[in-house]
Amino acid sequence: MITNKNCIIRLSRYKNSLHRLKSLGFVKVFSDNLADAIGVTSEQVRKDFSLFGIIGNKRGGYTVEALIEKLNTILGKDRVQNVIVSGLGNIGTALTKYRGFEKEGIKIMAAFEVDSTKYDRKTVIPVLHIDEMPEYIRKNEIKIGIIAVPDIAAQQVADLMIGAGIRGILNFAPIRLRCPEDVVINNVNLELELESVIYFVNTLNVPGAVLPKQE
Amino acid sequence: MITNKNCIIRLSRYKNSLHRLKSLGFVKVFSDNLADAIGVTSEQVRKDFSLFGIIGNKRGGYTVEALIEKLNTILGKDRVQNVIVSGLGNIGTALTKYRGFEKEGIKIMAAFEVDSTKYDRKTVIPVLHIDEMPEYIRKNEIKIGIIAVPDIAAQQVADLMIGAGIRGILNFAPIRLRCPEDVVINNVNLELELESVIYFVNTLNVPGAVLPKQE
Repeated sequence: MITNKNCIIRLSRYKNSLHRLKSLGFVKVFSDNLADAIGVTSEQVRKDFSLFGIIGNKRGGYTVEALIEKLNTILGKDRVQNVIVSGLGNIGTALTKYRGFEKEGIKIMAAFEVDSTKYDRKTVIPVLHIDEMPEYIRKNEIKIGIIAVPDIAAQQVADLMIGAGIRGILNFAPIRLRCPEDVVINNVNLELELESVIYFVNTLNVPGAVLPKQE
Repeated sequence: MITNKNCIIRLSRYKNSLHRLKSLGFVKVFSDNLADAIGVTSEQVRKDFSLFGIIGNKRGGYTVEALIEKLNTILGKDRVQNVIVSGLGNIGTALTKYRGFEKEGIKIMAAFEVDSTKYDRKTVIPVLHIDEMPEYIRKNEIKIGIIAVPDIAAQQVADLMIGAGIRGILNFAPIRLRCPEDVVINNVNLELELESVIYFVNTLNVPGAVLPKQE
């Protein structure tokens, strides 16, 4: 099956919209509704769904409840996803406190640090030494890691994670990580995101400037 | 001039790579070097540069120093960019402490909150009541805002910002904001980013699964 990241991100958005529609009492939903909710065309919605074998009824509608269930299965949300974090600076700390993840069935199991003043085994999310990370990953069969360490340490942390069995990384360090082909890396670079906003604002007054579509 | 967000993000990445190369003593650089550094083809590098009138010399090389200067001008980094933040939860607080922005010439001027226990006019970044935000934006001619409030409040905050003169928003709230066409909105949704990693890890063992390229 050929899929790309943007398609998966759209599936997550459909799912979030469906939850809102469900809470409003919707039982059925049409591709037009979902298209409006996330800002794509209804053809795109149907194409995304058909890629995963989700077919509407004769009139093009979908049952909200059944659709949520299917999307949850596709997105692996029918079970809790265990994740670890490396690096407890500002971003790492915010992530461990972030309630949005738990709501989505994502559980941060432990955080790893080099700074010994931050160690604490008794907190809800234990903070352990980075040297303990590989064993922890193996023992708990963790597949997903978040990297929130400074750029200079990021590759080393990624190598440790991957060597111990991590297969997917959400990377906040502003460098491009080298990794084997069967490991997926998703980069979030806050400076770059803000810089692109700044660029487009600065060029708003340039004649002929074309604004990007909201993604 | 037709540009898109990914192109601008690549320009930022070239610039960051050039700073690293400069610190290593590089005086000249080739499109191949930059292509390798950020993981695109050298044709892409030359295409991006030519869009902005940046032309290499006969042998296809660029002077590091001159290239950094040009990219900084394009990206608006030849001057400090003033930004405000609304919402001092985990993410908002992390952003106000984040040193990555200052390094990039981005200055968070003030933060706005509804929670009165967080007000503080004497901190380096003053924390003010959200009601003071419109006047602050007008008085200081702020064009860029960061939204880090809960999703339920995000549209209202966006309307306040835009009404007062904000032209670009980096939005961390997990909803799609409605805004006029001449305002640019860049969404960062951490759950969706992590969900897409989880999806691809879960499908790694599916025969024929195609992994997305690192972006």
